[in-house]
Order: sequence, then structure tokens, then C-alpha cells
Amino acid sequence: MTPTPSRTSARILHWDGERLHVLDQTRLPAEEVVLTLTGAEDTAEAIRRLAVRGAPLIGVAAGYGAAMEIARNPRPGPALARLAAARPTARNLAWAVERVAAADDARAEAEAIAREDEAASTALSAHGADALEAALPAGPVTVLTHCNSGALAASGRGTGLGVIAELADRREVHVLACEARPLLQGARLTVWELRRLGLPHALLVDSAAAGLIRRGEVDAVVTGLDRVAANGDVANKVGTYPLALAAGAAGIPFVAAGPSSSVDLSLASGDAIEIEERDAAEVRGALPADTPCRNPAFDVTPAELVWALVTERGAARPVTRETLAAVA
Amino acid sequence: MTPTPSRTSARILHWDGERLHVLDQTRLPAEEVVLTLTGAEDTAEAIRRLAVRGAPLIGVAAGYGAAMEIARNPRPGPALARLAAARPTARNLAWAVERVAAADDARAEAEAIAREDEAASTALSAHGADALEAALPAGPVTVLTHCNSGALAASGRGTGLGVIAELADRREVHVLACEARPLLQGARLTVWELRRLGLPHALLVDSAAAGLIRRGEVDAVVTGLDRVAANGDVANKVGTYPLALAAGAAGIPFVAAGPSSSVDLSLASGDAIEIEERDAAEVRGALPADTPCRNPAFDVTPAELVWALVTERGAARPVTRETLAAVA
Repeated sequence: MTPTPSRTSARILHWDGERLHVLDQTRLPAEEVVLTLTGAEDTAEAIRRLAVRGAPLIGVAAGYGAAMEIARNPRPGPALARLAAARPTARNLAWAVERVAAADDARAEAEAIAREDEAASTALSAHGADALEAALPAGPVTVLTHCNSGALAASGRGTGLGVIAELADRREVHVLACEARPLLQGARLTVWELRRLGLPHALLVDSAAAGLIRRGEVDAVVTGLDRVAANGDVANKVGTYPLALAAGAAGIPFVAAGPSSSVDLSLASGDAIEIEERDAAEVRGALPADTPCRNPAFDVTPAELVWALVTERGAARPVTRETLAAVA
Repeated sequence: MTPTPSRTSARILHWDGERLHVLDQTRLPAEEVVLTLTGAEDTAEAIRRLAVRGAPLIGVAAGYGAAMEIARNPRPGPALARLAAARPTARNLAWAVERVAAADDARAEAEAIAREDEAASTALSAHGADALEAALPAGPVTVLTHCNSGALAASGRGTGLGVIAELADRREVHVLACEARPLLQGARLTVWELRRLGLPHALLVDSAAAGLIRRGEVDAVVTGLDRVAANGDVANKVGTYPLALAAGAAGIPFVAAGPSSSVDLSLASGDAIEIEERDAAEVRGALPADTPCRNPAFDVTPAELVWALVTERGAARPVTRETLAAVA
């Protein structure tokens, strides 16, 4: 497999020492538009409208947003609070804002978060690939993923997609990418990344995954994660839970990968994780404006369906309070 | 609940004694365009491009298509064979064509198929509602459905949606409708029908259903079915299987409803059901034309996940070879 040349010169996230430049992910794959952010408010807005997304990358961007706000605003508290609340589910968002706000040198702290996130991506990708290598049959494998958990969602090569890219460095991997309705981050972003990585792939509608898993066409399911409770329940992009159900029924591994900062030991179980309900317009499309819609952005996968939970600190397998605490 | 006035005067399927007039379902809900069909070829084309869809309605239309062809073509065999093969998964299609071709009076046979389908819808709706009534908690309930199995898919009020409409005649029912990517028959067709029926409802993306089921927001899942094997495995619209998995995990009923002609006792199990793989363009949308896609139109739900399999002859519950044979 020869990697195809990068189709872009735009960097996904670039800190120039003063300002944060981010690729507007809502415009991909059609256009590569770079936004320059200057403080907490525009960073919060970029996060809210998903120009910047993916729990780890949200954390990195929020850290820089907080640092920029602190540098220019003698009373940054209210703006930082609004930034920390831009989206409710991602643990990393409030975590990064709080960490930068508490630091003596806000800018250095934001830069440290970014460096740590890149190192975390490298480490967790290796831990995840190690775990899968030990369990998968020899030869080429097909790995299914959901939404986007690659370089557009985290530093480095990402989390879930980082694990897959690392596995593909070691053996032949074909990737099945779920489109991730309603906003199609899988179709728009993961397919864009898979082309850049030169990995053979196919796109499918979300609801087709379970049937292909049942038919034996998939060797493993690997996703990112947004938040993990103390009992190992995982909140991730809506549609992750049915993939885990199908993987469990077929006896194939379901791996959720993300930074240890996503683990929130203050939450007893997934039932305590607030699930963001987004605007009905995302679902409604061309239907009449009075069409009632439900639009939960996340779902919760119970710990017993998670074959391995991978962070930069290692792979928890099976997922128990004890194994989770060791990687949190 | 006051039913809202019908927004349409167009009939979904109308036989004038010579020609078949069908509402072009690919144009709903934006436009109500009636197609007039004259023989096997244009009926096959309407079925192939989903202008007419839903296993029972395909059977009715195919019966009329065959009768029209036989009336005008002294050697109708090749055209009838192409009609019978217009789509591979629906059992009713070949069944109806064969039945009309074998009859002394083709037109009368096609009319009989249509009459029987309407009577079947009424009967199976009652059987399904009876089974659910015995199992559901008292008071208002929320029923989730997938794709379209209503009057746009079968005569009368349909199959899965017929069961839901009958249940709603007896108690308060809120309906959650999955959109059914890639062609959005749930969003376009089921929501259009739910408005006509005056039933409170909300639309959701397919992958959001499992999470809502896990959170206890759904009391039952009810769908149509396309084909049933002798062991009770059910082929239906892609995305049905993960709903059945989620219903099973939550301990709520999963009901699949369809005419007994959908039961194919010649198929040992769901593994023998051919799964139609449709055009990648349906999935690809605005992405580059060389984007690889998978697009299976159906999936198979194993019998053990089907709480009740309902036909016009009764409800098989639990689904075993014996109970299935009694309703086939």
C-alpha cells in the first residue's frame, strides 16, 4: 500500500504562539477553510458549531482559547465558564479550561496540553494495536469504525483511527467507515482522512454495520470515546452502542480509545453522563420545519460490551473498575 | 387525538380495471406524482427504482404488472421473468408473478392478490396489536419503527405501521420513526403517513434508536418484514437487526409483521437469504464519485431476537419452526 499524497496543505490545528488556526471541519471535504481564533468566545463558538470537534481536539482548542482569553481579559471568568460549557458531554473541554485557568503560565499550560495530546495519541495507538494484534486472526483484517476519531478529532493520528492506522502499519487493514448521521463526520471526515492515509476503505450507512458484522465481514470495531464513567461505561457518538451490541453478538473485539482525561471517576455509571440533545434541524433535512425530531448526539455503551478500553496509559481488558483505574 | 386532514387526494395504488396507477414514492413527500403502468417492463422499472416499494405492495403491483403483460403479449414469459427478478429479496414479487402466470384468468388473479393483501393487513394489524396489548404496561406507550411498513408499503394501513395504527386505536401511542438511510423511507414516507394518521411522532437518525431503547424511552419496536426463513430468521430493511439487538438487550418486544407469503419455508435459515447490494451512489451523496461504498439493502435478524412474528394468520410467539409453520 502506497500512501496517496496529502491533498491538503492546511494544518488541522496550528498554534502560532499568539493565535489558534483551525481547519473548519464543517466545510470538509469540499473546502479547506482555516479559521483564526482569538479568545474564549470564538473558540467556544467554533466548538459549539463543530468546526472543531472530537473530544481530545476540543480539549486542545479549549486550552488555547482559555490561554488567549486570559492573556487579553483581566476578568476572564465568565468567558471561560461559557467556553467550558460550549458542549456538555466532552470531559476534556471543562478539564482543559480548568487546567489552564489554574496555571501560573496559561500559555505554557495550553501548549503542554497540546504536546501531551500528541504523545497520548502515539501511545494509545500502540496500546490498541498491541491488544488487537494478540486477538485477531493472521493476515488481512477488516476493521469497522464510526464517526471520526482521527487527526481531525485529536492530535497525531487520533484515537480510534490512530489505533487503526497503527495496526495498518503492521498488517493489511481494510477499513469500513460508518457515515455518522446526522452530520456525516464519518463520510466527510474519516473518508477524507483514510484517503490521506492511503488505507483501502468503504463507506456505509450507520445501520448497515450490524448486518455486515453478523455476516462475518468484520474482524474488529474500533472507535473513539467522549467520556468514560468509573464503571467503564463509555459515552461516544450516537450509534456506537449498536455497533458494540453487534460486535458482542458476533464475538469480535469492540475497542474504544481515548485520552485518560476522558475518564471521569466522579460518574458512577453511564446513566450519570449527560447526553447532549442537538438541534432538530440536523435531522430534519428537507422535511417540513414542524417535523418533530429527536437528536441525541451520544449514546452509552455499557462496560460489559467493551472488549478493551484504551488510553495512553494502556489497555483495560476486560473493563473493570480496577483495570480502568490503571489506565485513567 | 384528532386525525389531521389528509394532505393528499392521490391514491397510493389504484387499479382501474385496465391500467395500474401508483404514487411515485421516490417523489414523496415533496410531490404527489402518479405513474400509470401498462405492463411488466414499466412495472419492473417502477419496482427497481423504488417508486413502488414494500414487500406486500411490490407483490400487488407485480401481480397487476404480470396480468397487464399477459393481456397484451402472446409470449410474456421473458418479460415476466424480468419482472419477477426486479428485486432479489422480496419473496412476494416472484410469488405474485408466478401465481398470476399460472392462473386461468390473470386479471382476476391479480385482483384477488390485492383483495387478499388488504384483508391480510387488517388481520395482521389486529394480531400484532393483540400480542402487544397483552405485554405492554398500562397507559401511553412509545413504539419505535423503521423504514416504511405502512399504507405506502402494503394495502390497508400496512404491516408494521398497521400494527401500530391498530394499537393507537386502542390506547395512546407515540411513534418514533427511524429515517432509514440511505433512501430515507422513514423520514420521507413514514412521517408523511404518521401525519395523515394524526399520530404524535418524532423522527430520528437510525443509529440513535439503540441508545433511546437502552435509556428506557421505548416500549416496543415494530417493523415490517421482507422475507422469513423456515427457522424464523427475518430479512428486513437494513438496520432492523441492530434494533432487534437493542430491544433484546432492554427486554422490550421486537415485533416483525408481514403477509404469510413472505415466509419462505424453502430457506433453511437467514443465511440462505440473498441480500441485495444496491448502487453505491445512494450512500455516497456529494462525496467524490470514486468513494468506495457498501450498500446492503437488508439485514437478517435471527429468530431468537424476534419476540413475535405476525402474519394475517396469527402471531408466532416465541418464534420456532412450529409456531412459524402455523402462521406461514
